Amino acid sequence: MVEPGQYLRDLFTQPVGSAVVARGWVKTVRSGKGVSFIQLSDGSCFADLQVVADPSVVPEGVTTGACLSIAGELVASPGSGQAVELQAKEITVLGPADSATYPLQPKRHTFEFLREQAHLRVRSNTFGAVFRVRNAVSWAIHKFFQERGFLYVHTPIITTSDAEGAGAMFGVTTLDLQNLPRTEAGGIDFKEDFFGKQAHLTVSGQLEAEIFALAFTNCYTFGPTFRAENSNTPRHLAEFWMIEPEMAFCDLEGNKALAEAFLKYVIQHVLDTCAADLEFFTKRIDENVLPTLEKVATSTFAQVTYTEAIQQLEKAAKSHKFEFPVFWGCDLQSEHERYLTDEVFQRPVIVTDYPKEIKAFYMRLNDDEKTVRAMDVLAPRIGEIIGGSQREERYDVLIDKIRKQELPEEAYWWYLELRKYGSAPHAGFGLGLERLVLYLTGMKNIRDVIPFPRTPGSADF
Amino acid sequence: MVEPGQYLRDLFTQPVGSAVVARGWVKTVRSGKGVSFIQLSDGSCFADLQVVADPSVVPEGVTTGACLSIAGELVASPGSGQAVELQAKEITVLGPADSATYPLQPKRHTFEFLREQAHLRVRSNTFGAVFRVRNAVSWAIHKFFQERGFLYVHTPIITTSDAEGAGAMFGVTTLDLQNLPRTEAGGIDFKEDFFGKQAHLTVSGQLEAEIFALAFTNCYTFGPTFRAENSNTPRHLAEFWMIEPEMAFCDLEGNKALAEAFLKYVIQHVLDTCAADLEFFTKRIDENVLPTLEKVATSTFAQVTYTEAIQQLEKAAKSHKFEFPVFWGCDLQSEHERYLTDEVFQRPVIVTDYPKEIKAFYMRLNDDEKTVRAMDVLAPRIGEIIGGSQREERYDVLIDKIRKQELPEEAYWWYLELRKYGSAPHAGFGLGLERLVLYLTGMKNIRDVIPFPRTPGSADF
Repeated sequence: MVEPGQYLRDLFTQPVGSAVVARGWVKTVRSGKGVSFIQLSDGSCFADLQVVADPSVVPEGVTTGACLSIAGELVASPGSGQAVELQAKEITVLGPADSATYPLQPKRHTFEFLREQAHLRVRSNTFGAVFRVRNAVSWAIHKFFQERGFLYVHTPIITTSDAEGAGAMFGVTTLDLQNLPRTEAGGIDFKEDFFGKQAHLTVSGQLEAEIFALAFTNCYTFGPTFRAENSNTPRHLAEFWMIEPEMAFCDLEGNKALAEAFLKYVIQHVLDTCAADLEFFTKRIDENVLPTLEKVATSTFAQVTYTEAIQQLEKAAKSHKFEFPVFWGCDLQSEHERYLTDEVFQRPVIVTDYPKEIKAFYMRLNDDEKTVRAMDVLAPRIGEIIGGSQREERYDVLIDKIRKQELPEEAYWWYLELRKYGSAPHAGFGLGLERLVLYLTGMKNIRDVIPFPRTPGSADF
Repeated sequence: MVEPGQYLRDLFTQPVGSAVVARGWVKTVRSGKGVSFIQLSDGSCFADLQVVADPSVVPEGVTTGACLSIAGELVASPGSGQAVELQAKEITVLGPADSATYPLQPKRHTFEFLREQAHLRVRSNTFGAVFRVRNAVSWAIHKFFQERGFLYVHTPIITTSDAEGAGAMFGVTTLDLQNLPRTEAGGIDFKEDFFGKQAHLTVSGQLEAEIFALAFTNCYTFGPTFRAENSNTPRHLAEFWMIEPEMAFCDLEGNKALAEAFLKYVIQHVLDTCAADLEFFTKRIDENVLPTLEKVATSTFAQVTYTEAIQQLEKAAKSHKFEFPVFWGCDLQSEHERYLTDEVFQRPVIVTDYPKEIKAFYMRLNDDEKTVRAMDVLAPRIGEIIGGSQREERYDVLIDKIRKQELPEEAYWWYLELRKYGSAPHAGFGLGLERLVLYLTGMKNIRDVIPFPRTPGSADF
């Protein structure tokens, strides 16, 4: 198998004259006068290895999409953009790709078409780069938290508690739908279902992560979450990956500081390790990718309260036309967020202390009794990228809120007990991995930054 | 918030005389003549911080389970097992825990009882240690693969392909069960369901991982998988986490070598970073924990073919009584696996080349046409811990097998195309995280090594 040091990316730094074996898939083949040029990729880096071969060593089956093993010698490259290229001595076709039927011809394909070829699109320049960036940022996320002593916790995917309330949920069942068991009253008898209760797919691991923060001090989740919303947009997925750190002995100030450090760290990691991929995105997908990332990695984030942000926006509304009205109490729309990041501050902004009416029940009530210790991190170009809060750690205030909002009190029994036994100030935030990868790559459709997108009407592969 | 260097584990190495603030939860309180002793834990390590306090600085509410912030000075410890203890100057009760009702009294509780207290059991010695080990091994898994250039891939959780065939599946639906849409023939009309088809929770990410291996050379999954089997045993979960590496340009030899290197690496990492936790497990749960782990980390794994293993077992059966019969073609039972690891080889064993009838369709057929390039890694004390194979990369052989086994050929269209376009020898394996954590901790019930277990009739929290 291919060991570290044997990937194609490692060949580029080996000395001229080295005898090597290169393995990978053919991007393109060109045959000139007495010489063939093969671009070979093994997915380990953006650059292809240029292979130069005398036609006599090129067997049948060396076409776009074929898998080859090539023994040869590294020679100085006159102009392939790399220091070396491979002079082929022996070429073996491990797997041909009939050029009459191979779906990915060496021409431009639309992203829509490539989504239907999710098993092959990963071999293209764009999707190679997307999934290298996705890997790099996933690793950076683990590294960031592990270096800070955070415990990685696997919160449950299947849940029978209806407590999260963050969106429409998928049902999970082993009942025979053709032959559903009934209660005497005529309802579905979920006692007969696998878990003895109605079960769903989780929409967030936050509430369970709080359990771990209140035992291990700092923890984080990194796992799939689900929304059964019928939203067919370039920004919605039914299945996506979330990261949710949760910290005991932490208030909103600590939360803000961690969110800023986190974003800068993961962006810097991707800048450091995926330079060629980001250059490609900047050249071919969105010219702002590298400039914005470099700026975010080094800027100090702006901080405003929601109330201050509304004042700024009200002032702006006199000369700038917003589609949605601006008033204290309104939810900030994308256009408002973009105005704050792109026009007012020209860098990321952390907006805090939102009206309690537009935020979740578990956010800590401020002394003004009107606002809660919520925070949204807004980034230039994309808007909200992180949402979080200091959590309500006071039993009396929390149960009062649960009752006033008519939430199912019994479902929260353990969440309430966390406030009854050894409660502590704590805070955390969440972000969607795919939103972050969109930001890092400049890709426009969230279906193109997850390996196998699940959306209304579509769950292929 | 608590930064690296401020966890309780970091205090143990600070010099006597340091002024510090310690935060955590009270394990026990003892009040002696004019002095109180408080054992404080923040979950960052196995050891508690011993706090010595004059009764005059101990406020009300310092009881087991309470959350405290204690300012004081580190002093030399006469006999707490640590170099230092904390002389309290000021104690703040952040969150009390009414000792009349607090569920975790300072006495032994059964694991069964603690499962019902999953929100509090994490503060106990045993579960603190379990989840630190789980975190350490999860991190080691990522580190191992990232250091070797493997790409982390998120394979889908919701699937509409019935192609995996590894076990009973959970249905995923947004249909209103009270009011199911019907086809004209009277069946359920899944065209009306969220994905326009019947959908399930994945049982394995392997087939999709093969897509990524055949583009990025080496990749791995690390995510949740599901089995809807009604198995109420200490070794089965309905929801568990799997790791599945997949490597192009790799045969069974490479696969074996990687599996052995992998197990040794992650075990060594846990030995290095969780020494006190493992000592606890060895003392209190299973005296074989440390001895076996240390042995596995340094031994060379034995290798036998299935056929050789059967010969060994047939020989043994003359003097040793097995419950299940041994014959060529039989599936190895736990008792057989244990006999091989514990009696015959006394170290881990990799068994290869199983009869094709008892292994999955995608495993590469040997030239004998009777056996396939499968491998199981068996470990002393626990039996099978890893299962893998070289995959069938030959289109004709694969489609022949799919047809003979009457599998739904259309469902495998993309899996077959991987063999049609740029196929390559490839191999991989899978292991369940919880089985590994059982092995690392000596815990006996798999429900006690996952934060929130999902089993028949139970999906609380």
